[in-house]
Amino acid sequence: MLGLAVRQWCAPVLGLEPLATARDYLERRAELGWREATTRLLTAAEVSDWLVDTGYGGDASPGDLGGGRTHEVVRVEQVAEQLAATGTAGLLDAVRIKLRERAEHAVALKTVVAYRGGLEVPPDPPSRVGLRAAVDDWLRSGDPRLRNHVVHAWLVHEAARVGMELGLPLQFHTGFGDPDLHLRTADPLLLTDFIRATECQVVLLHCWPFHRHAAYLAHAFPNVSVDIGLTLPFTGARAAAVLAETLELAPFDAVLYSSDGCDLPELHHLGAVLFRHHLGLLLDEWLAAGTLTAADAERLAESIGADNARRLHSGLSRSPAADRP
Amino acid sequence: MLGLAVRQWCAPVLGLEPLATARDYLERRAELGWREATTRLLTAAEVSDWLVDTGYGGDASPGDLGGGRTHEVVRVEQVAEQLAATGTAGLLDAVRIKLRERAEHAVALKTVVAYRGGLEVPPDPPSRVGLRAAVDDWLRSGDPRLRNHVVHAWLVHEAARVGMELGLPLQFHTGFGDPDLHLRTADPLLLTDFIRATECQVVLLHCWPFHRHAAYLAHAFPNVSVDIGLTLPFTGARAAAVLAETLELAPFDAVLYSSDGCDLPELHHLGAVLFRHHLGLLLDEWLAAGTLTAADAERLAESIGADNARRLHSGLSRSPAADRP
Amino acid sequence: MLGLAVRQWCAPVLGLEPLATARDYLERRAELGWREATTRLLTAAEVSDWLVDTGYGGDASPGDLGGGRTHEVVRVEQVAEQLAATGTAGLLDAVRIKLRERAEHAVALKTVVAYRGGLEVPPDPPSRVGLRAAVDDWLRSGDPRLRNHVVHAWLVHEAARVGMELGLPLQFHTGFGDPDLHLRTADPLLLTDFIRATECQVVLLHCWPFHRHAAYLAHAFPNVSVDIGLTLPFTGARAAAVLAETLELAPFDAVLYSSDGCDLPELHHLGAVLFRHHLGLLLDEWLAAGTLTAADAERLAESIGADNARRLHSGLSRSPAADRP
Repeated sequence: MLGLAVRQWCAPVLGLEPLATARDYLERRAELGWREATTRLLTAAEVSDWLVDTGYGGDASPGDLGGGRTHEVVRVEQVAEQLAATGTAGLLDAVRIKLRERAEHAVALKTVVAYRGGLEVPPDPPSRVGLRAAVDDWLRSGDPRLRNHVVHAWLVHEAARVGMELGLPLQFHTGFGDPDLHLRTADPLLLTDFIRATECQVVLLHCWPFHRHAAYLAHAFPNVSVDIGLTLPFTGARAAAVLAETLELAPFDAVLYSSDGCDLPELHHLGAVLFRHHLGLLLDEWLAAGTLTAADAERLAESIGADNARRLHSGLSRSPAADRP
Repeated sequence: MLGLAVRQWCAPVLGLEPLATARDYLERRAELGWREATTRLLTAAEVSDWLVDTGYGGDASPGDLGGGRTHEVVRVEQVAEQLAATGTAGLLDAVRIKLRERAEHAVALKTVVAYRGGLEVPPDPPSRVGLRAAVDDWLRSGDPRLRNHVVHAWLVHEAARVGMELGLPLQFHTGFGDPDLHLRTADPLLLTDFIRATECQVVLLHCWPFHRHAAYLAHAFPNVSVDIGLTLPFTGARAAAVLAETLELAPFDAVLYSSDGCDLPELHHLGAVLFRHHLGLLLDEWLAAGTLTAADAERLAESIGADNARRLHSGLSRSPAADRP
Repeated sequence: MLGLAVRQWCAPVLGLEPLATARDYLERRAELGWREATTRLLTAAEVSDWLVDTGYGGDASPGDLGGGRTHEVVRVEQVAEQLAATGTAGLLDAVRIKLRERAEHAVALKTVVAYRGGLEVPPDPPSRVGLRAAVDDWLRSGDPRLRNHVVHAWLVHEAARVGMELGLPLQFHTGFGDPDLHLRTADPLLLTDFIRATECQVVLLHCWPFHRHAAYLAHAFPNVSVDIGLTLPFTGARAAAVLAETLELAPFDAVLYSSDGCDLPELHHLGAVLFRHHLGLLLDEWLAAGTLTAADAERLAESIGADNARRLHSGLSRSPAADRP
């Protein structure tokens, strides 16, 4: 599906016919060079604000190439792992301070605990004694990755605390992703007890095939939003169907657009155009069925496409460059 | 979705244009007063028989306001909790007697064990010794709610026994509901062992997002029916899609209509009109595709809309007021 | 749904109008006799290669009645259970030898571990000591069915080893099936650790309602294919919807057609015609939406309908009768 979507939607941006062959696409892309291809794809996505998880590596700033403002999302595991790698004494305090410092310049925090111990984060942070032993275990293991469940639980609770204090939402990777994921432990329903216990705003990312589970959480808990991100480019022609399933129960003011692109600018482009096109298809269908008015449809599209994210990420307007055009 | 559905389908019943604004709707509703608004919404639902779970509180009788006959569904937890609250000696025997007594005037029994210990009810009732200790634990705890898993398992088995003796089905809340639910423990598949062990008729209510799981159980076990109740008003414009997923595997004689309205008469109205409208859309689509004949479609609609429920709830015709019009 | 599909698609093959009544259908079928009815239904399915699980009992060869070549799929539990029943000494070695011998004349291996201990097969085979004790337990139990989890895990690993050596895929029943199944333990995601650990090609059969989970595994792991088999005849008019959900994430070269018919030739016929018809509907829809070209659509249909299976089952062309027409 992703391959077809690239050929349908990205090929014309590079000056080819829609559905040009994969071979022609790759040739044309090489001919243009990565900078030109990226600039075209990002610019044509017409994105006003890029929220970039800087923990994934690379120092791309999509705003530089594609226009729009760039804001930081802090990956909390990266903060802990970087400090652990440098052998910092008093690791927990150092993480606490660094997290806060990084968060002050960011618009959101993000955790990939789904990839490590899974989403069943306990509703209470670990005890001090247990935590100290767990930190020692992790450091002794020499593993550069944080895979200790106790330390991870502490980190997620710490991130939620910082998020709450600074008004930043905490994003969770949920649902499908890279092959090192165990999909069963990435079901957002596993977060239920944590969500109930925290007052931090929680954003559930990606979600597929558990997007209905995520929609339920957004329906049941006022501090939950759903952002099916990565799902749209990957499901391509089926994006409207997945969006529709999500909107069955998720309140319209708790659904957020994102592209969740990474590595390839194609993913950012597809995220944006598939979202607009497929939400448009759904709204046309619902208008024809008398489900909503044209004004409702416009408001819904603006909410999901931008306003909900602006409300949730207060940093978008706080940041100096964020004068809304 | 629920909000849009109210504006689309309920506004005209109160004399407004379809899709009147929420503000206009609330004003008009206040102007009419609750009795008139309720009477209009329930009457326009054109329901012949209301099966009312009296354990939810309130003493509304929709039949009085909306026409049609009212029948009782006994919530089994309420029976146990009321007797426990009065400090009745010999609680288990008292519950057994009261359950039977209440059931004799009812058309079905209902359990909300999904909200308490979850649906993994063991296939065998607890041992006497374990049960006696569990009752003591519960009573000593002073908790007015039955949250003891052992006592709850006993109660569900007892309800199934009474149901079997009197020919009453036992309804289970499954799937989404209020925020105190843990959705993972409300998956109807958790009931598999219990269903296999009992001969009582089991009705799975609501089910979303596990409606395909419920459909499977109805396919695999002759004593299971599916009633997606609450799901239709809440998923609104998506009701046909959810119904279609349910009908993929559920036998057509094991699917039941209900509105599962509570608190608001809007929910009853929407349950009825969305069911008729969306089942109609599905049947039109299937007729056009040559999937069934017009006679099949009519039979299917009558089965799900009324006949399956009449066959399953023998009390509907046994009850004095239940002469079919 | 299955009943409607038989009336819509099979009735004309027996010389009746589409949607003839069930009564007329059964009369006509009896009139023709089982051989003629079967021959007509299988022939009209236009299947070139039948891959038959011979462990299900019966000695039908669909190729004899319906044209096309017949190939064997070895059910691994049957091999173990037959040897256990005859009191063979050195059971494990005997199974190892027999499995290999049977596999040399087959195109695939199949396991029904989903029906026994469930799909959570450990990533490593059991230890020798544990295994010896487990075999003794099983044999002492006198149970003709292999229900010992340890022996079963060994058998699945052994099958994967043989499959890898001979280039045969190992099929797993997943998802819905007969009532002795516990659907929760038939979720293909439970196989994740095993899939990660093996290099054998794994085929996930049936899958519904976990077809999206199966699609994810095919997306994440290069050694996984999805064959929703049984699902199409059973979901009838909804086959396109289920196929579409599967194709959201499953790579197009990792999806396989099968009818998974058993007992009734109607199931084979429906598997084939519903697959062709509903995949055709999907492709028409995607063509109209500009999602793919006509050439893409043809290639996709050929891949899923035949080529993927031919590539995966090298035995199809190795077998003497398998000259492609």
